[in-house]
Amino acid sequence: MSTASTGTDRRRSTALLTDHYELTMLQAALRAGTAGRRCVFEVFARRVPDGRRYGVVAGTGRVLEAIESFRFGEDEIADLRERGVVDERTLEFLADYRFDGDVWAYAEGDAYFPYSPLLVVESDFAHGVILETVILSILNHDSAVASAASRMTGAAGTRPCIEMGSRRTHDEAAVAAARAAYIAGFASTSNLEAGRRHGVPTVGTSAHAFTLLHDSEREAFAAQVDALGTGTTLLVDTYDVSEGVATAVEVAGTELGGVRLDSGDLVEQAREVRDQLDGLGATGTRITVTSDLDEYAIAALAAAPVDGYGVGTRVVTGSGHPTASMVYKLVAREDADGQMIGVVKKSKDKKSVGGRKYALRRLDANGVARAELIGIGELPEDDGEGVSDRELLVPLIRGGEVVGREHCTVEAARERHEASMAELPRSAHQLSQGQPAVETVFVTETP
Amino acid sequence: MSTASTGTDRRRSTALLTDHYELTMLQAALRAGTAGRRCVFEVFARRVPDGRRYGVVAGTGRVLEAIESFRFGEDEIADLRERGVVDERTLEFLADYRFDGDVWAYAEGDAYFPYSPLLVVESDFAHGVILETVILSILNHDSAVASAASRMTGAAGTRPCIEMGSRRTHDEAAVAAARAAYIAGFASTSNLEAGRRHGVPTVGTSAHAFTLLHDSEREAFAAQVDALGTGTTLLVDTYDVSEGVATAVEVAGTELGGVRLDSGDLVEQAREVRDQLDGLGATGTRITVTSDLDEYAIAALAAAPVDGYGVGTRVVTGSGHPTASMVYKLVAREDADGQMIGVVKKSKDKKSVGGRKYALRRLDANGVARAELIGIGELPEDDGEGVSDRELLVPLIRGGEVVGREHCTVEAARERHEASMAELPRSAHQLSQGQPAVETVFVTETP
Repeated sequence: MSTASTGTDRRRSTALLTDHYELTMLQAALRAGTAGRRCVFEVFARRVPDGRRYGVVAGTGRVLEAIESFRFGEDEIADLRERGVVDERTLEFLADYRFDGDVWAYAEGDAYFPYSPLLVVESDFAHGVILETVILSILNHDSAVASAASRMTGAAGTRPCIEMGSRRTHDEAAVAAARAAYIAGFASTSNLEAGRRHGVPTVGTSAHAFTLLHDSEREAFAAQVDALGTGTTLLVDTYDVSEGVATAVEVAGTELGGVRLDSGDLVEQAREVRDQLDGLGATGTRITVTSDLDEYAIAALAAAPVDGYGVGTRVVTGSGHPTASMVYKLVAREDADGQMIGVVKKSKDKKSVGGRKYALRRLDANGVARAELIGIGELPEDDGEGVSDRELLVPLIRGGEVVGREHCTVEAARERHEASMAELPRSAHQLSQGQPAVETVFVTETP
Repeated sequence: MSTASTGTDRRRSTALLTDHYELTMLQAALRAGTAGRRCVFEVFARRVPDGRRYGVVAGTGRVLEAIESFRFGEDEIADLRERGVVDERTLEFLADYRFDGDVWAYAEGDAYFPYSPLLVVESDFAHGVILETVILSILNHDSAVASAASRMTGAAGTRPCIEMGSRRTHDEAAVAAARAAYIAGFASTSNLEAGRRHGVPTVGTSAHAFTLLHDSEREAFAAQVDALGTGTTLLVDTYDVSEGVATAVEVAGTELGGVRLDSGDLVEQAREVRDQLDGLGATGTRITVTSDLDEYAIAALAAAPVDGYGVGTRVVTGSGHPTASMVYKLVAREDADGQMIGVVKKSKDKKSVGGRKYALRRLDANGVARAELIGIGELPEDDGEGVSDRELLVPLIRGGEVVGREHCTVEAARERHEASMAELPRSAHQLSQGQPAVETVFVTETP
């Protein structure tokens, strides 16, 4: 179950999750005879979110499925024709469209840094250009969530984090956010569809509405324990927390699974509730806190007797950075003589580097990441010292065929994330503002 | 086409876009015999985004369709059973679930203020509680986008705004964002699926990749004009803007439709480009700017010779406020004697008000909004002065039947937004930090 599905619903075409200009560019290139030129497109971010030490790539598995579902069926063609988006020749091309190129990418769950070449598309212009929007939508959203989630699970240490922000983000984005947070170390989600579609464990017991539905808190707790067992978690802050805790233990006994606090000063309350629970003999009853948490609030609770964190708004909105700012750029293309040449837009304020990139994470003798080495046109060499340097781009699609699904299942991505975190220098895990923990180094010049 | 579709794909069940705890609460209430108690749930926001003067409700049409598609089919039931989410009795209830209550809401596109009762669900506990997540996901996302978009179109005045942020948000959220921005006055979107599904006009011509694909900017421009006509918009900042503009007019002639600037100091560049175009005789050629715009940047460009704004990241991420922070609260329920009573969680830091709400926007003699009047248990009275006060909650669903679809088609919502903006006091349209432009007044006490 848990690894069976990695992405979006395969029955739905993703072809119109596309910006209008991609199809007009296609039309113009088809007419000009340049649509067949071989190209290299690259996804990268010029920065990780300001002040953070690293980002986490997520969404790669969803990208793979989005490319597989990128088909212009009768409905899509009819719509484009009716609205006059492109001409008949372009519609003919689109009706037959199947991505036939190669895709390489960072394994899902891996850390990334400024200018890491996160995903590379090699195809002709026509086949690559029209994938821009859907690839970026997925990677920008999912990576923003995973990057925030990773800092939260880092701050939480061994205590589990529960993703429960579905209500604060778009209905389908919620499903992807649950998946991304799980990859970045969250233990579970509230979102049932994420359970079905991606195999993320789902959890939940009750809300204030359930207590308010009943004539007393005691009646509500009794009803919940009767239905869900003494192992359930009771929400004890609808009226008075101290009375709530006393009632909870009276109703459920000292075997009560947990209590949840959703408001107030959590540090102070957690101590009081722990003392009260212990005094009542409910020493095994867990305390979960869930009120407006982010990585900083989690860190502030490190010394409090808390057993788990429920995180909502801040994780699904990227903790202040709701998009990962990744771009999809043409970096090389065939010239009139059939030679590949690096290309780059001139820009005063935004650095871009032309050419097909290769990437290696340099590891020192202790296996700690020391640099993100980016080669242009060829893979940087392992320095032969310490632990072998790690090649970062893995093949996902070759000649249109998926060859790398194992690099982006949810479980593989979760393992990759954990391994990558263990590999980063300790400074990467500081929450304070700072520079990326690993420096990006271009080791060859643009040819 | 444009008004035919207001929402999400009706073929897909929305039933699992739901938090786990809603179903466990249902299980416990069914077992306790309290699931059938009549309830009133209310959606409201305790605040508009910090420092803003108003919010804009969007997503209501999508909510309506989500409720219609809220069905637990065989697949959903099988998944819940397999994962042990709830017991068999609850699964039986869910298999037969059809929302059978009433829904009232602010017309889509209307302005809102703190504590405006934006959506009211009247049903028994079982039928209302499980709609919480999907209703909030839709309203929180779409209203966040519309609230930001409304400030942008306000700042843009008569100049059109184009939504082009699909690549910076979740793939499906992008479609909803395009819809929400259009409701809030945007002229068009880059997102093709928003064109198909919601009838939003789509636009686009070319990106830097198209210029870089060709051996020269001139070749690229010629190819584009050949395919898309002289009315197209040429992107002139891939290399040197001044040379780009000269080449554009040489290639397309003085009838060139437009040029686009996507980088640099837009105010200064717009003036230089306007002068250059006029000097070349291309006096009708429009200038569109598209680089990292938000409402403040748009306002700063008011005096520059710009003809249109393309807005990306900032509109789809709510310009700093990616969620509208709306909540779905049980505010009244039947007691053991069959009487309806207001209910409210005790809270030091968060105000909530029990009871079924009614809302009226008080308008003065000039038709300007002066107060958001909220009655508990009954509609506040029109003061009989000036323009008639406007009742804000309209019926959407009665006894499970949709009765108010006309209040939330995309076109109706767009008109409602425009009318509501015209009705707000002038202070509402200030971009500076401040208080809500209209004060919320509770005119009756909780019974």
